[in-house]
Amino acid sequence: MKVVIAGFGTVGQGIAEVIGMRQELFSKSFGQQVKIVGAFDSSTIVKNARGLDPVELVRRKASTGTVGTRKVDGGVKELIEEYDFDTLIETTPTNILDAEPGYTHIMAALGSGKNVITSNKGPLALRFRELSKAAARNKVQLRYEASVGGAMPVINLSRELLRGEEIFSLRGILNGTCNFILNRMKDEGLPFEQALREAQEMGIAERDPSYDIDGVDSACKLAILANAIFGKDVTYNDVIRTGIRNITEDAIALAGEQNKVIRLIGEINKDRLEVSPRMVPNGHPLAIGGTLNIVQLLTDLAGEVTVVGRGAGRMETASAILSDLLAILSEDRAKGR
Amino acid sequence: MKVVIAGFGTVGQGIAEVIGMRQELFSKSFGQQVKIVGAFDSSTIVKNARGLDPVELVRRKASTGTVGTRKVDGGVKELIEEYDFDTLIETTPTNILDAEPGYTHIMAALGSGKNVITSNKGPLALRFRELSKAAARNKVQLRYEASVGGAMPVINLSRELLRGEEIFSLRGILNGTCNFILNRMKDEGLPFEQALREAQEMGIAERDPSYDIDGVDSACKLAILANAIFGKDVTYNDVIRTGIRNITEDAIALAGEQNKVIRLIGEINKDRLEVSPRMVPNGHPLAIGGTLNIVQLLTDLAGEVTVVGRGAGRMETASAILSDLLAILSEDRAKGR
Repeated sequence: MKVVIAGFGTVGQGIAEVIGMRQELFSKSFGQQVKIVGAFDSSTIVKNARGLDPVELVRRKASTGTVGTRKVDGGVKELIEEYDFDTLIETTPTNILDAEPGYTHIMAALGSGKNVITSNKGPLALRFRELSKAAARNKVQLRYEASVGGAMPVINLSRELLRGEEIFSLRGILNGTCNFILNRMKDEGLPFEQALREAQEMGIAERDPSYDIDGVDSACKLAILANAIFGKDVTYNDVIRTGIRNITEDAIALAGEQNKVIRLIGEINKDRLEVSPRMVPNGHPLAIGGTLNIVQLLTDLAGEVTVVGRGAGRMETASAILSDLLAILSEDRAKGR
Repeated sequence: MKVVIAGFGTVGQGIAEVIGMRQELFSKSFGQQVKIVGAFDSSTIVKNARGLDPVELVRRKASTGTVGTRKVDGGVKELIEEYDFDTLIETTPTNILDAEPGYTHIMAALGSGKNVITSNKGPLALRFRELSKAAARNKVQLRYEASVGGAMPVINLSRELLRGEEIFSLRGILNGTCNFILNRMKDEGLPFEQALREAQEMGIAERDPSYDIDGVDSACKLAILANAIFGKDVTYNDVIRTGIRNITEDAIALAGEQNKVIRLIGEINKDRLEVSPRMVPNGHPLAIGGTLNIVQLLTDLAGEVTVVGRGAGRMETASAILSDLLAILSEDRAKGR
């Protein structure tokens, strides 16, 4: 299988490394190698039909700041179509205003009969239906486990392991930064501003934290899950959203007196698509601490099934992309390709 | 697909009902019906090559105490071989001394080229390797998601969604009864005996509770996971085991002072295969309350991945058997059968 990596930040570098690390698995399980035949970032591109060395790609990015050996000139779309490859791995950053450049990359790849694996929330949270239809029309796969909750395998769990279940509703913690802040406020009695500053100093929260603490990131993920698992036709803008900016020490102390904690919960059910702070009893799965992500699915036969994992990180996100890559290889083998 | 159900207690009845409920799914996803062509319990048998009505089977069991219309006479093995069917669903009770009658049922079915799905821990916890080899030799599938943790999909999660990961170790709570007792001791300050009595009155613990509280059930499940996920060659007897009988109110109060709880934890790693009570910090996934089961896997790329589900129950266990049934249908389709 030949792949192209679009975007070469943390996630792009992570998946390049993982593809390098797992060649033995690919050949043992599927009798083939996975070759990276191209990679590009916002300014440069590199390609080689016989395969690029992942270690070399990552080294060049680290030393020069760019992955490629020459400038991206003809526009990304033409480059994608010119390549001879099977699967595009799209890892450019999430853009919640217009989904670019991810949307253009993904549509171009699907349109020319290539599978797409993406970690990019923008296109999925804004134009999910359009992308799914393009994948179906071109008889290729569009997979996006990495777009929600890093290494927490909620999408493939729902689609594969729970395919016999009717899934009624979902609740979850989809942003590790908010969970860290709420937990520090509780454990140390810190005010919000101080817990946020601590998270920023530790590199858990961004300098501009609003994407996390105002629930934007959680709402993107919730919209993706609503489309992917519940067959809804919604975007990020349909999610009712309240962040954690106004959670006071008093509110957290009051919850504690009732043996409860406050968590930023995303919920999907028949009538509701909402991200907001809620009280959760200690001992309940959603009372989880740290920066973990968690999703709880309510189903007709199994009852509640819950999955927990690391919501972010270079190798964690690469791990989710790898699981999608293996699923594509497995489907291809089943179809005798 | 034609199936036979061996054992017609709670689990056997549950899967019969679920097969009845999911005919639309089977035909929509796989273009075929799933027919129950035979069922037997310890004293009677019923069969019909054109398919039995699940509702009628469950009704007869409820009113007469037996599933069948005539006595089992020629021995179960002969009956299995005489049937024309694809998959045996083995749901007889766990026997941790000699694995019977499940072991004989499963080996007979595998030996005559039939897939087996089982919820029975005995054969897997005592003779795993032998059963796997028989399945491989006969090119059929042996699946057993229901044998560990009811509706918690840990086996299929490890094998399918985490197939790209190296799994280093596992920790989990594999017995809901113990978790309930430990939680009641903590929440209400009850002594062990009283929490146990309460669990018995609620039907959560058996009249003879030793299978649960001495860690036998957890150890069986841990042995199955060690074989299935870690490729070890172990039995129930290889598990070092301490139950919760000697946990005092004082120990639980002391843990509480450190913001911790006591849980009966099963652990598998390179050198260890052990079930014993441990302290777990509040907010940690394993600090979960109620009767839930939980397993946490430590992997090389994804880090910790945790799954939580209901560990027992008629529909919950049937749900796990259904997921195995769908996996077999899916494999068969992939192979063009």
